[in-house]
Amino acid sequence: MRRQSDQPPVRYELIHTCKQSGARLGRVMTPHSSFLTPEFMPVGTQGTVKGMSPDELDQMGARIILSNTYHLWMRPGSNIIREAGGLHRFMNWNHSILTDSGGFQVFSLALPKNIKEDGVRFKSHIDGSVHLLTPEKSIEVQNDLGSDIVMAFDECAPFPCSHEHARTAAERTTRWLERCVTAHKNPDKQALFGIIQGGVYPDLRIQSAKDIVSFDLPGYAIGGLSVGEPGDLMYRMLEETVPYMPGEKPRYLMGVGTPDYLLEGAIRGIDMFDCVLPTRIGRNGTVLTRNGRLIVRDATCANQHFPIEEDCDCYACKNFTRAYIRHLIKAGEMFGLRLCSWHNLRFLLRLMEDIRSAIREDRLIDFRNEFFKRFGYLPK
Amino acid sequence: MRRQSDQPPVRYELIHTCKQSGARLGRVMTPHSSFLTPEFMPVGTQGTVKGMSPDELDQMGARIILSNTYHLWMRPGSNIIREAGGLHRFMNWNHSILTDSGGFQVFSLALPKNIKEDGVRFKSHIDGSVHLLTPEKSIEVQNDLGSDIVMAFDECAPFPCSHEHARTAAERTTRWLERCVTAHKNPDKQALFGIIQGGVYPDLRIQSAKDIVSFDLPGYAIGGLSVGEPGDLMYRMLEETVPYMPGEKPRYLMGVGTPDYLLEGAIRGIDMFDCVLPTRIGRNGTVLTRNGRLIVRDATCANQHFPIEEDCDCYACKNFTRAYIRHLIKAGEMFGLRLCSWHNLRFLLRLMEDIRSAIREDRLIDFRNEFFKRFGYLPK
Repeated sequence: MRRQSDQPPVRYELIHTCKQSGARLGRVMTPHSSFLTPEFMPVGTQGTVKGMSPDELDQMGARIILSNTYHLWMRPGSNIIREAGGLHRFMNWNHSILTDSGGFQVFSLALPKNIKEDGVRFKSHIDGSVHLLTPEKSIEVQNDLGSDIVMAFDECAPFPCSHEHARTAAERTTRWLERCVTAHKNPDKQALFGIIQGGVYPDLRIQSAKDIVSFDLPGYAIGGLSVGEPGDLMYRMLEETVPYMPGEKPRYLMGVGTPDYLLEGAIRGIDMFDCVLPTRIGRNGTVLTRNGRLIVRDATCANQHFPIEEDCDCYACKNFTRAYIRHLIKAGEMFGLRLCSWHNLRFLLRLMEDIRSAIREDRLIDFRNEFFKRFGYLPK
Repeated sequence: MRRQSDQPPVRYELIHTCKQSGARLGRVMTPHSSFLTPEFMPVGTQGTVKGMSPDELDQMGARIILSNTYHLWMRPGSNIIREAGGLHRFMNWNHSILTDSGGFQVFSLALPKNIKEDGVRFKSHIDGSVHLLTPEKSIEVQNDLGSDIVMAFDECAPFPCSHEHARTAAERTTRWLERCVTAHKNPDKQALFGIIQGGVYPDLRIQSAKDIVSFDLPGYAIGGLSVGEPGDLMYRMLEETVPYMPGEKPRYLMGVGTPDYLLEGAIRGIDMFDCVLPTRIGRNGTVLTRNGRLIVRDATCANQHFPIEEDCDCYACKNFTRAYIRHLIKAGEMFGLRLCSWHNLRFLLRLMEDIRSAIREDRLIDFRNEFFKRFGYLPK
């Protein structure tokens, strides 16, 4: 259902619910683009999806990317991006951008004693300079960046962590969300998404979902998963949490991921995903195929004068062979990493297209079972 | 004049001679493309012009690239490229390819005692394995690669070197050319170019030109220049040598270059050039502009929200600012190096377009003087 009432900057339209799985096909509309969901968002940490041009991302079908507030705040600085007219103009990307809060990065950089109610004090990974990231500062930077979707500053508890630690982090996340809402200067053009925490404890997840959803925001995310816990535990947390998330808003599972997580997430009602996987493994000369991962730099590819995947429509597969790409990677040539990243990004975007088709045709469970069998995952 | 008689694989057509400079506008036709001359050839050492896709090279107007026999022989091996159907198919480049002989690289790797009449014994830069490069081997590898233009295996004397050393090298180059001609298995589809040597000694240059031209090949190159000698000395060598090169064949000045060398070479009757400069300095965050070199990584560019060059038609200038490109380079992002290389390659290809227009309009000396003044070169 499309909300017509208050016209928030990001809206969600439900198109179809898969009768076999309960997964949902929908559409998210932002000030810069609309895209069908479930969808995967390529990650452009420093204002560029590593190795790719914005035109190439457009050609492969990407309509939303994620960029990292912490990295852009540290370098080049949000003032420079604000002067440039925002991140869209700075990087020449005309579709949607979601920015994270920077919380995930600064929590990994900060000493425990420097994580306080006010915010997190940390040292820059670039020059060691000391900075304080607060809910207000995170929103200020994201307002400068001008992203379509602004993520709330949250406390992401590690895995494993105690019930007490997870509860404290979830409760602080709620208090920080209130400060984010107050600090947000551009709610008409940038949609603030709240983040549900609670570790791997169902009672905390449910309470956090209730608390976060009470803010009536344009969308909600599930954070603190895919941080090292077993897959089954993550799936259970989704099953506990999603029912408390409103059906008329997009649901975003942060930092996911791998083909199995994308499929299992979609089955459990998730609409949006992001992960560095396709470009990170691409830069190491590893590619995703329907038959599992392939290490293109391996000697077996040296004489393979055929594409990574015969039926793939990506630029790498339509124009180059495994033998050539392996040569480029062995020779340390940038173009080889670019081709592997290109294929991996397109692989995941195609997987999402297939997931959406399967939802529309009420056969997502069948699709998952077939995909897992061929890819080499153990069936659930 | 177009040669109709024996239809060699590469032909040259003279279109116009500049009345002001004597420079010539022409066209070179190969089995894979035709291109106007004077022309600059981007260098794709390992079967890829660093950072660029073949489509991008096509878009920016490149119609011939150079690739390095030594590198491709060592890795991935010419057998793999032969199996792939040749270098054009291996790297998916449908226009022309010129391959060097590998001589320049192996001479720099070999001990003096291992440079003999038979050939050059050297250690691979990859694994230290010992190989022998002979005229026959160089041609065999280039036949496997299937390049449109095959360069003869020559002895490139260093600078400075004695008259005796330069003479010995030039004479051996002639003897080796005879062996190259004999070894060449594909003269109908691949044009063998001879290389004139002779160091910086006019008498040797003239003798070498006479000796090499006596072979009646489809084209001739001038080697052993741009190896550290002063520019004026190089220009004088061109002036001594070019008159002995036939007007109906293309003339290629190897390893050049910089904008001043390209202009002065064209003025002295050269048709083809190659150099790693645009991608090498691009990868260091330096770009060429009409007003001289610009170090994009410098802090002055941090707030420059405008292109490298306002009137440049390259992808980098049409879509991105100096501030963004500087950010990418500072952040170590591949895409920044790609954009700098893109601009530099297009800058040199545009310079060649401008040179050709100036020849057509009999004003190449004026053009050179204006270009030098703006770029910051001292006028000749």
